[in-house]
Amino acid sequence: MADLHVPINHAEGGIAAQIAAQLREAIRRGRLTPGTRLPASRDLATDLAVSRGVVVEAYEQLVAEGFLISRVGSGTRVAPAAARPPAPPAPAGSEGPGPYYGHRPTSPDLGHFPRERWLASVRHVLTTAPSDALDYGDPGGVPELREELAGYLRRVRAADVAPENLVIVGGVAQGLSLVLHVLTQRTRTGRTRTGRAGARRTGTGRAGTGQIGRGGRLPLAIEDPTSHRQVPLLRRAGARLLPVPVDDQGLDVAALRDQPAEAVLVTPAHQYPTGVVLSPERRAALMEWAHTAGATVLEDDYDAEFRFDRDPVGCLQGLAPDRVILSGSVSKALAPGLRLGWVVAPAELAEAVRRARGELDLGSPVVEQYALAHFLRTGGYDKHLRRMRREYHRRRDSLVGALAEHLPEVRVHGIEAGLHIYLRLPDGWDEGRVSELAQEQGLAAEPVAPMRFTKGGPAVVVGFARLPAHRAVEAVRGLKVRMSGQSID
Amino acid sequence: MADLHVPINHAEGGIAAQIAAQLREAIRRGRLTPGTRLPASRDLATDLAVSRGVVVEAYEQLVAEGFLISRVGSGTRVAPAAARPPAPPAPAGSEGPGPYYGHRPTSPDLGHFPRERWLASVRHVLTTAPSDALDYGDPGGVPELREELAGYLRRVRAADVAPENLVIVGGVAQGLSLVLHVLTQRTRTGRTRTGRAGARRTGTGRAGTGQIGRGGRLPLAIEDPTSHRQVPLLRRAGARLLPVPVDDQGLDVAALRDQPAEAVLVTPAHQYPTGVVLSPERRAALMEWAHTAGATVLEDDYDAEFRFDRDPVGCLQGLAPDRVILSGSVSKALAPGLRLGWVVAPAELAEAVRRARGELDLGSPVVEQYALAHFLRTGGYDKHLRRMRREYHRRRDSLVGALAEHLPEVRVHGIEAGLHIYLRLPDGWDEGRVSELAQEQGLAAEPVAPMRFTKGGPAVVVGFARLPAHRAVEAVRGLKVRMSGQSID
Repeated sequence: MADLHVPINHAEGGIAAQIAAQLREAIRRGRLTPGTRLPASRDLATDLAVSRGVVVEAYEQLVAEGFLISRVGSGTRVAPAAARPPAPPAPAGSEGPGPYYGHRPTSPDLGHFPRERWLASVRHVLTTAPSDALDYGDPGGVPELREELAGYLRRVRAADVAPENLVIVGGVAQGLSLVLHVLTQRTRTGRTRTGRAGARRTGTGRAGTGQIGRGGRLPLAIEDPTSHRQVPLLRRAGARLLPVPVDDQGLDVAALRDQPAEAVLVTPAHQYPTGVVLSPERRAALMEWAHTAGATVLEDDYDAEFRFDRDPVGCLQGLAPDRVILSGSVSKALAPGLRLGWVVAPAELAEAVRRARGELDLGSPVVEQYALAHFLRTGGYDKHLRRMRREYHRRRDSLVGALAEHLPEVRVHGIEAGLHIYLRLPDGWDEGRVSELAQEQGLAAEPVAPMRFTKGGPAVVVGFARLPAHRAVEAVRGLKVRMSGQSID
Repeated sequence: MADLHVPINHAEGGIAAQIAAQLREAIRRGRLTPGTRLPASRDLATDLAVSRGVVVEAYEQLVAEGFLISRVGSGTRVAPAAARPPAPPAPAGSEGPGPYYGHRPTSPDLGHFPRERWLASVRHVLTTAPSDALDYGDPGGVPELREELAGYLRRVRAADVAPENLVIVGGVAQGLSLVLHVLTQRTRTGRTRTGRAGARRTGTGRAGTGQIGRGGRLPLAIEDPTSHRQVPLLRRAGARLLPVPVDDQGLDVAALRDQPAEAVLVTPAHQYPTGVVLSPERRAALMEWAHTAGATVLEDDYDAEFRFDRDPVGCLQGLAPDRVILSGSVSKALAPGLRLGWVVAPAELAEAVRRARGELDLGSPVVEQYALAHFLRTGGYDKHLRRMRREYHRRRDSLVGALAEHLPEVRVHGIEAGLHIYLRLPDGWDEGRVSELAQEQGLAAEPVAPMRFTKGGPAVVVGFARLPAHRAVEAVRGLKVRMSGQSID
């Protein structure tokens, strides 16, 4: 033990802690192996020119932590449990990020995030909220925000909602996770309302455990094509996916009728990726199906904030609040990084979602909930949305105009609303290659094939939220030039 | 239709929207029933003294939303799907809050939350972070915070951690939910490392679905007594609970050996509720068990910030980073309402937790993550902790002193660390009644019986974080007086 290397910085203080840290590191790195006897505290103290008490303190710390063992008569040794296997190789890390990570073509322009006004809201909360407001909050969301949001959704989305129908969640993703979790539990325990659902349930597993056997997966109809980023989430939450085609009216309800679905997930305000707004006839047919089948409609109020050529169409939930569960968020209106969203459901189901949240993570952070409530109450939210709607309208017009002029062979769809458009490419074009070339020109493009369950013609999604109006012509022209020099079909 | 009541405020503007809102409400409330034919737009316009275009616009809005149907030759009618069943009765609401909701005896004193310094950190983020920082973040947490926290945990908790071992979560509850979810998946798919786990797995269900069959629940040893608020969470996350007794050294590892556990959840720094700090011998024995059994130790670093009479003992994770998964949060150090915590795990498992998070809710809000990173970097966190440690030390001394003087028949345990103490009551005392009387005196008391899996003597937990030192004597004296006038045994 004469070679025990314990360099000490006497100027720094905390000598015992320094010694403990050195020894801990030596044990971890295998320089001191299990069973090794350490020098007597008196000897080490002499070596290091410190008082014996300091070494004793360091040893005691490591005994308390389990790195060392001290027994009368056998001195102090490195503990057997401190044996370290060789470190496993680091994970490749090259698998790429998770399915939802990073920038998306449809992200809003965060350069316009209202930083000062948002900071003012946070300041308001931190200077006025009582201390108890910082304690464990209601997992369903702070009452002030539920109240404000219910009012907002009634007014702007024509939703039929009171605060007890509303649960605050960390965005649409978490809203869907929780709702599917609750619905799947019900499928399993036979608590769905209709005989249809009851007849299909398998009844395996024990009630109240929240675990779902194979037979208990929720048959969920989804739009085809759909956001491929969402698919792993839906499956993890317990859904069995039943793709239903989308045409230029939206979800094909006739095709839906052929599916044994107990629920359907739709984006009526602006379908992703096709950009279709669900037509009035389809809205009626969808709700009729839901009533007849005793099924639930999960409405993702995607892009609803941005309707350009007319007043926004009210949400489906307002039409049939007993059948529709509405999910929305501030991700497009403010910023995805805020992770703030909501679920609107019949009161009894909202309560089940709230309880599930309480048994998952105890709810969303409270300060930003209060801040959003204040932002809504003082009109900051409306004002920001009006401003952004004008700006995005300009950007859309500019991009659509440039495409019509320079790439007339491409058919542009889904321009009525939202932050992306859908481009149908001529047959035979390579959508992947077009996407790459578009990205090179600064266009937020993505191929549609990964979003399809059944084969379809070549198409790309292009987000325009971050494309300044004056840049659109240049970008589209650049794309045209690049394409003419390439084999894209 | 002559009695269609549509009051309009001409001064307010948005006449079409007003008409649409009135009609929508009439349909919802059943005043206009499905199939009802609406007046021709010309007639209604005359009635209301508005232009016909305004009525057409209102009708079109409601057709788009699905409340009305318009067909050539048959006019405009209320849609069949707009039929509203009678509203179900509101839920009782008297079931009380979810298991984790509201103030707990062990909540910190939020009157000392460093509001100004925290606001300064948020301001720093909102004035300096690039726009992209507000986009979808890494579901594993923003890199800056992972870097800062890894450094902090190495320094203060002697953890063996690099940023790639660390996942930011919404508190210990979510950390446990995610870790158990991932471990349960592995139990099911047989990806645990040891033969022991492999032999017991049932292999039902399909790989990669994230759903767990009955046989795939994770056998998880837990401390008995334990936080009863956590039990529903552990079960929902897929655990089968195996209670193991806690004595005055901490978890009884000999009893643990008799259990078929693949993982164990412990609170070594300050057990809840008994307040025991896991002894050096038990730490060693626990890690030996884990290595031998190929099992995982889930370390809840509960109350670790507040060790009063000596340096804090390093976490178990630092001793065996390949076997221990550490969870912690800022709930005690700052505020539960921030919902910020972390999981430290071997890199490959940390990556699995990160991916699970990405498929659940896409990660924690980013602004407060950056704010915490700044708060750590600028020393605000350390400073606040030092200050609170001194204050809580005073409060603990005061409460313990008052109990020794005025209620010597009560045995006080668990005073070395944390924000609560554990009182063993004389046999035959009614812990529920004592709790109630204590609460009346302003003591944050809770009976222990609901936390026990096996019967034990009467005991209560008392939190002292919010009990100013000068109030302790008065509160304990008051309790004594109340008890002497009551039958508490």
